[in-house]
Amino acid sequence: MTDYFTLKWIAEQGVIRMLDQRRLPHQTIYVDYSDYREVAIAIKEMVIRGAPALGAAGAYGLALAAARSRAAEAAGLRAELEAAAALLCAARPTAVNLGWGLDRVLRRAADPALLMPDSIRNAILDEAHAIAAEDARANRQLGLNALPLIPNSATIVHHCNTGTLACVDYGTALGVIRAAHEHGKRLHVLVDETRPRLQGARLTAWELQQLGIPHTVIVDGASGHFMRTRGVDLCVVGCDRVAANGDAANKIGTYNLALVAQAHSVPFYVAAPTSTLDLSLPNGEAIKIEEREPREVTHVGSEQITPEGAAAANPAFDVTPARHITAIITEMGVAYPPYEQSLAEMVARAEAQRQARQ
Amino acid sequence: MTDYFTLKWIAEQGVIRMLDQRRLPHQTIYVDYSDYREVAIAIKEMVIRGAPALGAAGAYGLALAAARSRAAEAAGLRAELEAAAALLCAARPTAVNLGWGLDRVLRRAADPALLMPDSIRNAILDEAHAIAAEDARANRQLGLNALPLIPNSATIVHHCNTGTLACVDYGTALGVIRAAHEHGKRLHVLVDETRPRLQGARLTAWELQQLGIPHTVIVDGASGHFMRTRGVDLCVVGCDRVAANGDAANKIGTYNLALVAQAHSVPFYVAAPTSTLDLSLPNGEAIKIEEREPREVTHVGSEQITPEGAAAANPAFDVTPARHITAIITEMGVAYPPYEQSLAEMVARAEAQRQARQ
Repeated sequence: MTDYFTLKWIAEQGVIRMLDQRRLPHQTIYVDYSDYREVAIAIKEMVIRGAPALGAAGAYGLALAAARSRAAEAAGLRAELEAAAALLCAARPTAVNLGWGLDRVLRRAADPALLMPDSIRNAILDEAHAIAAEDARANRQLGLNALPLIPNSATIVHHCNTGTLACVDYGTALGVIRAAHEHGKRLHVLVDETRPRLQGARLTAWELQQLGIPHTVIVDGASGHFMRTRGVDLCVVGCDRVAANGDAANKIGTYNLALVAQAHSVPFYVAAPTSTLDLSLPNGEAIKIEEREPREVTHVGSEQITPEGAAAANPAFDVTPARHITAIITEMGVAYPPYEQSLAEMVARAEAQRQARQ
Repeated sequence: MTDYFTLKWIAEQGVIRMLDQRRLPHQTIYVDYSDYREVAIAIKEMVIRGAPALGAAGAYGLALAAARSRAAEAAGLRAELEAAAALLCAARPTAVNLGWGLDRVLRRAADPALLMPDSIRNAILDEAHAIAAEDARANRQLGLNALPLIPNSATIVHHCNTGTLACVDYGTALGVIRAAHEHGKRLHVLVDETRPRLQGARLTAWELQQLGIPHTVIVDGASGHFMRTRGVDLCVVGCDRVAANGDAANKIGTYNLALVAQAHSVPFYVAAPTSTLDLSLPNGEAIKIEEREPREVTHVGSEQITPEGAAAANPAFDVTPARHITAIITEMGVAYPPYEQSLAEMVARAEAQRQARQ
């Protein structure tokens, strides 16, 4: 267990407590949110980030909206929830989990058996807790499913942050690394620093320190040099949205890493809980890529690194076409090409499991 | 013409004046050096960098050593020069031009016709001026030689800095871009920021601003995204040392860019004056890769980006195997594979030209 958490519902105060990831690794500061509009801003400004974490943050955001609503009737509350969900969803467009979490909560709130606002409020909080619990459970299972893919002694390149901090608990790609470590495999992680926001240098290195997993931070351009000169056994990354054909959107720099890995015949794995699969999209062309402020590129912290007035582009994500992905690891099993079939099978298994539990 | 310069011999004071590139793009500060040992430190700390610039800096460094020497006889001066050259050469190991410039000056100083220390001093300064003038001339010719390779309207990815600031004048890869711009081609340069030292964001963006060439700064991990979604016509980079088989050492991140370009069938050009060719090395395995302070990775400016105690690796260069290089552009012509032949031909032409001038 780690002694930090990404987000938590604090029942006594009816607030969401989130670790402000912009202050890491130097300060560990938790902030309480009582207004869903503040949660939307926190998501946009990346107090919290990571696809699975956003799913839970959106769901709890709706719990806040319901708790603070003065609606006296179910219909009025449901209308307010729809508006709140639209605002939350617009905060960040690329990760599917945010919209997915919001949709789940809205569907639950729409249950015609819920007649009173308070019963809707309770159901929403219940659903948010379920999403959070499922995320933590899914990540642990995902890590176990990946074990056969990880050699007993391995050098692994990892991009961005995909640990507890990107999720409710445990992590996706970092969960794969963590599970292998917990099963006694000897790992060394080459941590892509992940410009522009430096989630690798700031967050992943910090999490690996807590977990006692050996690692070295490298600049994003150095991965090929290490593959060529030292040998790398595999790459594992998370993702923000996977289309039906296996095309995967993830943090900018992922696609370059996939191409570099393929040129070295290094397996390239994407860790994706089924909540990150979006089978409604036929392929990656349909994934909306968030373009963030140029300032994230032109500045590091408060320091400007470019000349005054220099133009910069800042696509926050890229799409790695499925043909560059060796396998997609889910909590329902490991999907191999052709992904149209294997991903549909994973989603069907997840659905069957959910129905069996109900 | 640009209104800045990288380094210049100031005859009145007998000093080398260098633009402190660590202060760019925010401050344009020139520093005078009167002691070759300070020049060695300036090279190590990257007040000046770029393979061709280092060739001239080393040569002028020896001119300083000769000027300040109290040796009364030629033999004593020559011994001091050998020691000074060894110290200067050790400042940075990867770029061949530094050692090449020093060797040229030492060979000139060894001329048995030079009997008096003062005649050696004059010959050395003469040779340093010749190196500087040849560099500027070679770069302009290199840029012209590349013209047929550049479409009339082109999006170009460039890595690190290879402009006037990396040379005595004009630039190598940036000289290719500059020549095409001066010949009326419509260019847009995607400027790899080039972590860890950010020469792209700090220096190349600044030079392109001065030259009025449209450009956009991107993080190093984004090049594949732009090739896939927007289309890129070519990449052009400089280099620090090219082996006889065409393997090229250049700034870390170059190899990743070459692999990404190849995956998109985007031509990948290396701009290399013949002074950067090192035919004494059969291939890139023999090129020594400088490992710099981890602090360049763990910090940006004064800000630490990694957790306290995090390990970081900082290879300053990588080697791009020749099979990923479309062509090597020199001032003697464009070399295509097989490079063993074509590079030897370029060096032979340069040698013939030098002898014809003497």
